[in-house]
Amino acid sequence: MKGISILGSTGSIGKQTLDIISRFPERFCIVGLAAGKNITLLKEQILNFKPEIVSIKDKDDAIKLSKELKSESVEILWGEKGAEVVASHTKADLVVSAMVGVSGLKPTLSAIKSRKNVALANKEVLVMAGSILTLEALKNGISLIPVDSEHSALFQALRNSKKEFVKRLILTASGGPFLNLPKEKLADVTPEMALKHPTWHMGRKITIDSATLINKALEIIEARWLFGIEPKYISVWIHPQSIVHSMVEFIDGSIIAQMSIPDMRIPISYAISYPDRLPMDGNYNMSRAFGELSFEDADRGKFPALSLAYDALEEGGTMPAVMNAANEMAVQHFLKGGLKFLNIITVVKQVMDLHKTLTGDSLDEILESDNWARRTAESIISGYEN
Amino acid sequence: MKGISILGSTGSIGKQTLDIISRFPERFCIVGLAAGKNITLLKEQILNFKPEIVSIKDKDDAIKLSKELKSESVEILWGEKGAEVVASHTKADLVVSAMVGVSGLKPTLSAIKSRKNVALANKEVLVMAGSILTLEALKNGISLIPVDSEHSALFQALRNSKKEFVKRLILTASGGPFLNLPKEKLADVTPEMALKHPTWHMGRKITIDSATLINKALEIIEARWLFGIEPKYISVWIHPQSIVHSMVEFIDGSIIAQMSIPDMRIPISYAISYPDRLPMDGNYNMSRAFGELSFEDADRGKFPALSLAYDALEEGGTMPAVMNAANEMAVQHFLKGGLKFLNIITVVKQVMDLHKTLTGDSLDEILESDNWARRTAESIISGYEN
Repeated sequence: MKGISILGSTGSIGKQTLDIISRFPERFCIVGLAAGKNITLLKEQILNFKPEIVSIKDKDDAIKLSKELKSESVEILWGEKGAEVVASHTKADLVVSAMVGVSGLKPTLSAIKSRKNVALANKEVLVMAGSILTLEALKNGISLIPVDSEHSALFQALRNSKKEFVKRLILTASGGPFLNLPKEKLADVTPEMALKHPTWHMGRKITIDSATLINKALEIIEARWLFGIEPKYISVWIHPQSIVHSMVEFIDGSIIAQMSIPDMRIPISYAISYPDRLPMDGNYNMSRAFGELSFEDADRGKFPALSLAYDALEEGGTMPAVMNAANEMAVQHFLKGGLKFLNIITVVKQVMDLHKTLTGDSLDEILESDNWARRTAESIISGYEN
Repeated sequence: MKGISILGSTGSIGKQTLDIISRFPERFCIVGLAAGKNITLLKEQILNFKPEIVSIKDKDDAIKLSKELKSESVEILWGEKGAEVVASHTKADLVVSAMVGVSGLKPTLSAIKSRKNVALANKEVLVMAGSILTLEALKNGISLIPVDSEHSALFQALRNSKKEFVKRLILTASGGPFLNLPKEKLADVTPEMALKHPTWHMGRKITIDSATLINKALEIIEARWLFGIEPKYISVWIHPQSIVHSMVEFIDGSIIAQMSIPDMRIPISYAISYPDRLPMDGNYNMSRAFGELSFEDADRGKFPALSLAYDALEEGGTMPAVMNAANEMAVQHFLKGGLKFLNIITVVKQVMDLHKTLTGDSLDEILESDNWARRTAESIISGYEN
């Protein structure tokens, strides 16, 4: 029986993880859950999965939940510290890190330091603190297992291969909903348009990131840290069908690819069952052949977001964290309707240009730069807003 | 230093194997070579690679070669027994089995019984005696490493996966040169037309087998034995670009595929270097994205050769050997111009229909059925010839 704690249990990945776990009660038990503000859903999850411990963002919600669940034996905590306690609970073998953005950083580090294997869905924590997290993972002898479909594909394709045999990683990108939209029309893109992803159903933030392609930039940085591969050996190919989730090219000319229908439950199931595989039901099978698949090199001129990743990695230190934070702010304002679609990447680039890079050797430095980037982005965005 | 013996050194696979080995003199040395009738090329190979032992098909050629190579220290043998001695030479770590057809059977078995790992290019030996060979491989604790591009792909995709996680194997087929030719035009296909394969450069026999698609039937049987997978879990998809060489679908809906440009040197290099990979030069790399790849389920109505494989495996025993032998005869007659293209599969089916299946537990029974099938095919073919 594998004990699992989920950080971000009421989000898109958290819900899908629980859906899979509910189908395999003989293999998994839920040890802990940490959530944000969705108290109704968290309560339902507690009653269904009977965790030992949960944590919710706000103290008031924790108190409310405690009252409503008086008869349950669950321990109820709150805030970042609460999430850290959930992440390090002694009965957890694996922690699913699926909080959105910076809030997941300290709890994820907590899980690693408590020698838990981590199924990592929160790519931002690796973008911000990849060097620190991968070093801690190595020191503590734990596995960072990717949940992102692209990195799960790379992880599966690389499995047990020595790094000396790897020539490069090829990340695939659907190109998002606006792949074939003429550039002049991008100016008029609304949040409703950007939230309609052609192949994947995901959370709101990542769907917008896919439309701007900065999601792929974050994934380049994530891949660099997860697999210890230099950025120049990471390529991006546009593949609109989202069937091939990524590939590894080896020194002998062989490419190993992982494919599936685009459904996050597949990489989630692999991350929680690794090194085994779970029998998923018929809907996940390729009952018929793929049809047509197409691939083309991603043009960094056409997709300026990609260049930001290579620039941020070349600069190193706190720059990737700044890129990530500026993007979070810009996406928030775009979703609220205050920032135009095309200005999301412009804002990120402007904030990066203004940043004086620090080494990023400590979490404090990273969080300080993250904060600086948010404030700077806000101020730049206010200039764009009417 | 890995000692390698090659059975069939003057054939297409043999020559390409030596080409690769010549580029890595620090990793490989040639222990033995066995060849058929090409005495000129064998002599050249002896002078270049300095093997300890060689064997050639005919005694007269062996005597001639001995005279011409008086100053060399190489031991020169002949015939099937000679090839068996080459296959079991004490200094060989790996034997590349690349003779065409039935002639490779006993030498390959000899290699296995002498506890050599075998890089298997001769799929007919597995088709004929898959049960015997795989049992001997298991008993002797050796690896059968496929050289065929499709099976190399499956081998790479399966690597280290437990069989319980495999849902099915998906063999890809280019469909050959006549994929889009209307059926009525197939009647007029000449050997010259059939020898022009759209994506692969291979030997003559296998090129014709690719045009009739019986090559894919042989590969289904080969996969069944190499990977111990029931035939009903082996599918065929038509994939005209020959980039995806085959795939494994797992129980969780993940498909792992191996891809490369269509060049036999890639799977050969993997077979001789496994579990490592050799750095092949730039020509083997995917410098640009694939472009369009297409896949469709292979229709057994349209490709009757595929059904023969499932029929032969269901019947079991000596039936696959009979299918293979009848096909060898039919292809010979087609290449000589005496049999029409469409009648190749008809002849194979007729011989199979006439066969009274034996258990196939002994090599003698298999070779007897092989002989019977050749005689029967000859007699049927003479009825078709003008």
